[in-house]
Amino acid sequence: MSALLTDLYQLTMAAGYWLAGKTQERATFELFVRRLPPNRNFILVAGLRQAADYLLNLRFSDEDVRYLRDLEQFSRLPEAFFDDLRAFHFTGDLFAVPEGTPLFAGEPLLTLRAPMMEAQIPETYLLATLGFQTLIATKAARMVEAAGGRAVVEFGTRRAHSPGAGVLAGRASYIGGCAGTSNTLAGREFGIPVFGTAAHSWVMSFPTELEAFRRLQELLGPATTYLIDSYDTIEGARRAASLGEPLWGVRLDSGNLVELARAVRGILDAAELPGAKIMATGDLNEYKILELVAVGAPIDAFGVGTELATSSDAPSLGAVYKLVEMEIAGARRYTAKYSEEKATLPGAKQVFRYAGHDVIGRAGECPEPDCEALLRPVILQGKLVAELPSAAEARERARASLERLPKKLRSLFECDPAYPVELSAELLHLMEEVRRQARINGT
Amino acid sequence: MSALLTDLYQLTMAAGYWLAGKTQERATFELFVRRLPPNRNFILVAGLRQAADYLLNLRFSDEDVRYLRDLEQFSRLPEAFFDDLRAFHFTGDLFAVPEGTPLFAGEPLLTLRAPMMEAQIPETYLLATLGFQTLIATKAARMVEAAGGRAVVEFGTRRAHSPGAGVLAGRASYIGGCAGTSNTLAGREFGIPVFGTAAHSWVMSFPTELEAFRRLQELLGPATTYLIDSYDTIEGARRAASLGEPLWGVRLDSGNLVELARAVRGILDAAELPGAKIMATGDLNEYKILELVAVGAPIDAFGVGTELATSSDAPSLGAVYKLVEMEIAGARRYTAKYSEEKATLPGAKQVFRYAGHDVIGRAGECPEPDCEALLRPVILQGKLVAELPSAAEARERARASLERLPKKLRSLFECDPAYPVELSAELLHLMEEVRRQARINGT
Repeated sequence: MSALLTDLYQLTMAAGYWLAGKTQERATFELFVRRLPPNRNFILVAGLRQAADYLLNLRFSDEDVRYLRDLEQFSRLPEAFFDDLRAFHFTGDLFAVPEGTPLFAGEPLLTLRAPMMEAQIPETYLLATLGFQTLIATKAARMVEAAGGRAVVEFGTRRAHSPGAGVLAGRASYIGGCAGTSNTLAGREFGIPVFGTAAHSWVMSFPTELEAFRRLQELLGPATTYLIDSYDTIEGARRAASLGEPLWGVRLDSGNLVELARAVRGILDAAELPGAKIMATGDLNEYKILELVAVGAPIDAFGVGTELATSSDAPSLGAVYKLVEMEIAGARRYTAKYSEEKATLPGAKQVFRYAGHDVIGRAGECPEPDCEALLRPVILQGKLVAELPSAAEARERARASLERLPKKLRSLFECDPAYPVELSAELLHLMEEVRRQARINGT
Repeated sequence: MSALLTDLYQLTMAAGYWLAGKTQERATFELFVRRLPPNRNFILVAGLRQAADYLLNLRFSDEDVRYLRDLEQFSRLPEAFFDDLRAFHFTGDLFAVPEGTPLFAGEPLLTLRAPMMEAQIPETYLLATLGFQTLIATKAARMVEAAGGRAVVEFGTRRAHSPGAGVLAGRASYIGGCAGTSNTLAGREFGIPVFGTAAHSWVMSFPTELEAFRRLQELLGPATTYLIDSYDTIEGARRAASLGEPLWGVRLDSGNLVELARAVRGILDAAELPGAKIMATGDLNEYKILELVAVGAPIDAFGVGTELATSSDAPSLGAVYKLVEMEIAGARRYTAKYSEEKATLPGAKQVFRYAGHDVIGRAGECPEPDCEALLRPVILQGKLVAELPSAAEARERARASLERLPKKLRSLFECDPAYPVELSAELLHLMEEVRRQARINGT
């Protein structure tokens, strides 16, 4: 993983820390969201596996070092600095919340503690990979909630922000509760179920729709899903039904889905195919799914593309990565910001999850019994110390965790009051201390 | 490039074409947008280089083939099919509009002609890579237009949809007219200018702001840009000014940018630093930039993150890839759709650009003189036949092309009427023929 996949200022700061002799100073950063995205009552954490892979494999290649050395911004650095870059690797600690955990505003997704340079460089990558997958897992959980037990499949790679984002969207959607993805590489890489049968071009490539359907059935057997709206949906349904078993069902991709689903259900039932299913696709989102379910449209599964793979109503998470603590020659210094809009809390933290509420406390606190400490060691001194869950395990954690949340938290609309997240007495005390100290020192 | 980075249905269709003996049939697909995204009067094409790289390197690895063979959907395929996958590569033709070209609704970004399987599989990747980069280049062009000659720099990787999307967003933003990017890997890979100096964590890691500033100046010399809002912007400006030359300038990242920019300008001028520049950042978009420029805020450069790297007001382009023509045993068959919402035009096309209007015609048409045919051969029979422009060359093409458009087309708001795009007489004739034939045949 090229250490150049970051904002240039992380690298100029790293150079500056080196030049200022701060390579032995250790920093602790935390990654969190200040506010939940609109209409969300939680975020669902995803992306930790990619974040850990990145930290474990972070290197400057010779080409990377040559590139930096030629930049004007690095022209004042001695050769020893570039030698250090060639030997650079991550030697710090990573504590993180397991993938598939719902979190709330202000709760750290991860805490990273390392020498200044190593702590600074990863900011950009960590924000992008955890931010994106968390965004999509959260969106997927909304769709799955709306579908009320019917399957939701992620079909959005073509509209994702680059093909690679599509692979990660498939993974995150699965963690969020989708039944699977159309992204075949995501299927292979992450062991996720893959779905997909045929598009309009398949139907159009044969002289008749019936021949296209017959050929599909030969190919796919019991997995056959006919896309029936290429010419006329009702006619398409009749042609599909005329071929009988084996089939999985049919897919509707346009028109009035409620009316068409009812008519098509009638055709399938009349053909004595009560097991044949109906999937709906076509610019769906959680609100449309909720409506289709509410009116009782006989739809068994939903395929969602654009709105899921881009989280189009909230296309960014707004996660931040903030310095909370420094260790300089054995002395600890806590950092915080007090501006109203961009306040941060000082010191390394822990999230204690009780039944019915969370407490954000200091990292070393002894909590009450009956709570779960969500931030766990993942990397210590540069070595992986935890087995990272598979996508399927993260999905199961998400399912079980979301089930334990009050039902109104899973609403598609903002609920008031928000889930109760308290600050511990120790953390409040540290805040006051740091604020008092800042007042004494001026800036 | 793994051929699995696509929707599963492309692969099941490919298998179906193989099974139906359609491997010798050739298909022509076109990629275009049906409607421009909201408030856009054009799209700016980007992503062709990645699209061509993909087609030239498209392969199934042994691992890919093993994965497919184990899927239920491929269980009816004989071993010969998997042997063919192992030998699979792209042997078709690609015609495309050069990167940096503005296009309008309905105009193909590319035309791909190949044996059915080879034409079907790339759909997902091509849509994602051209769709995303075109989306971002278009968004960047809006920001650059709003900035009226002031520099706009792309700072959005942390909010991009995955770190890899950030690299491509840096590239696309540059093509769209940005001065550069903070993404260092995009800088190295695509020869794009990179920008960035220091964040709040730099300032906070030193005992005082002044010391942090002094250390930055030592490091960066004339590239020094002080981030002055960590504690108090006005105090920060005074401290920056007290250090004198060398510096590039200061960065404002919060607060009332108009008032602060004026006050800071005054401080810099009073310190006899008239050459020191002011950069503004912090949740900017094209509308905010337009406002800051309109009120005459003394800001020399803008850094834009989230809204640029996610095109947050229009986070998907809605591009489609449609079958327009088939060649079966030497006979040509044209395909089209006539539904109001999802109409497509039959046959391979060309876009003829005249001064003041475009004509979409048939691919083989002889146009009037004084026009540019925008779709050009890039790959023929699987071989690259054109030199692909660098990002800098695409950026220059974009600049020159946008300058030639009527100024109102570059507005941040929808202009009515839209840019005139006509259909040629030959294309209209083909449409009528195909429609007539469809009526005769039924479906």
